[in-house]
Amino acid sequence: MKIIIVGASGAIGKKVTANLESEHEIIKVGSKSGDIQADIKNPESIEAMFKAAGNFDALISTVGSGYFGPLKGMTPENFSTGLNDKLLGQVSLVLIGQHYINPKGSFTLTSGILSEDPVFALSNLSAVNGALNSFVIAAAAELDKGVRINVVSPGVVEDSPQYFPAFQGHIPVTMDKVVNAYRKSVLGIVNGQVIKVY
Amino acid sequence: MKIIIVGASGAIGKKVTANLESEHEIIKVGSKSGDIQADIKNPESIEAMFKAAGNFDALISTVGSGYFGPLKGMTPENFSTGLNDKLLGQVSLVLIGQHYINPKGSFTLTSGILSEDPVFALSNLSAVNGALNSFVIAAAAELDKGVRINVVSPGVVEDSPQYFPAFQGHIPVTMDKVVNAYRKSVLGIVNGQVIKVY
Repeated sequence: MKIIIVGASGAIGKKVTANLESEHEIIKVGSKSGDIQADIKNPESIEAMFKAAGNFDALISTVGSGYFGPLKGMTPENFSTGLNDKLLGQVSLVLIGQHYINPKGSFTLTSGILSEDPVFALSNLSAVNGALNSFVIAAAAELDKGVRINVVSPGVVEDSPQYFPAFQGHIPVTMDKVVNAYRKSVLGIVNGQVIKVY
Repeated sequence: MKIIIVGASGAIGKKVTANLESEHEIIKVGSKSGDIQADIKNPESIEAMFKAAGNFDALISTVGSGYFGPLKGMTPENFSTGLNDKLLGQVSLVLIGQHYINPKGSFTLTSGILSEDPVFALSNLSAVNGALNSFVIAAAAELDKGVRINVVSPGVVEDSPQYFPAFQGHIPVTMDKVVNAYRKSVLGIVNGQVIKVY
């Protein structure tokens, strides 16, 4: 299977890549590293990435950031920043990628626990994650040629201790569980699912 | 109670206004009608609206549109259009309005059934509604001085028959049920709730 992993050098992307690369052809995409560089905030850059990669069987996206800051001082512009990165960026990978993916292929995006279990100063990411979960449910019903789409929604992961202080009382999830969620989406049969890992 | 209703001339806003205006001071806001005109896509316009309205006890928003079109032909720019209207517009009412609302006041936004029950060609609104639901859960935990926030998530409403063809198999919800959801949010004690009307 030919699998594009966008965010292959991130905490999650690294472990997913390591897990899949012995059995599959992996094309690593990063903003500055990997086999191909792409900026998910730029549709032209995404288009160029797909043209360079050629037709593929699965795309895994583990990228995107949101706005970090208390609600009290947040401006519409701050909020918009997060929408344009983790949300619109990942949705753009699907909107553009649907024209390059092979029949029976799959898209796997990444949201997160904040959609239903918020923490201080990350309300923007709560919104972004909620949007991604609902988008996937809707998009699954419209993709044709047997193409599937799912989203993995992890809790704070054990390999990202820098986020632990922001996630007070949250129990970090093991990378093993997280990696298996991506395997389930790519190699399994599920479609239109929010695969929760927490 | 002094209540600002943004979208007071819409199908839902009209009925909510009619229900509340005998007991409360209502300030109607519309893009072209009402006591004050405002464009929710423009933060300066929102700021001017709050300055003109003065301090208030409750804000109800029943406005915002999304992008309508099949996933197959959708571009990142199409998707972004919807994010900037119903999602960012309503969130901006809260981000800016939090500096004008009275202690123990409330915000009530509007999402919709598509967050979990999608229909063809409205995947953008599924995402928008999912984002609004998750934003409200997170924002409720950060608003201070006893200010509450909820979101009403209605199914297709009986007063909007023009949408029935897009919602095949959905049972339109009565305006009476919808109006009571807004009453519950504004006059009740609930906070951080997605009030589903379907």
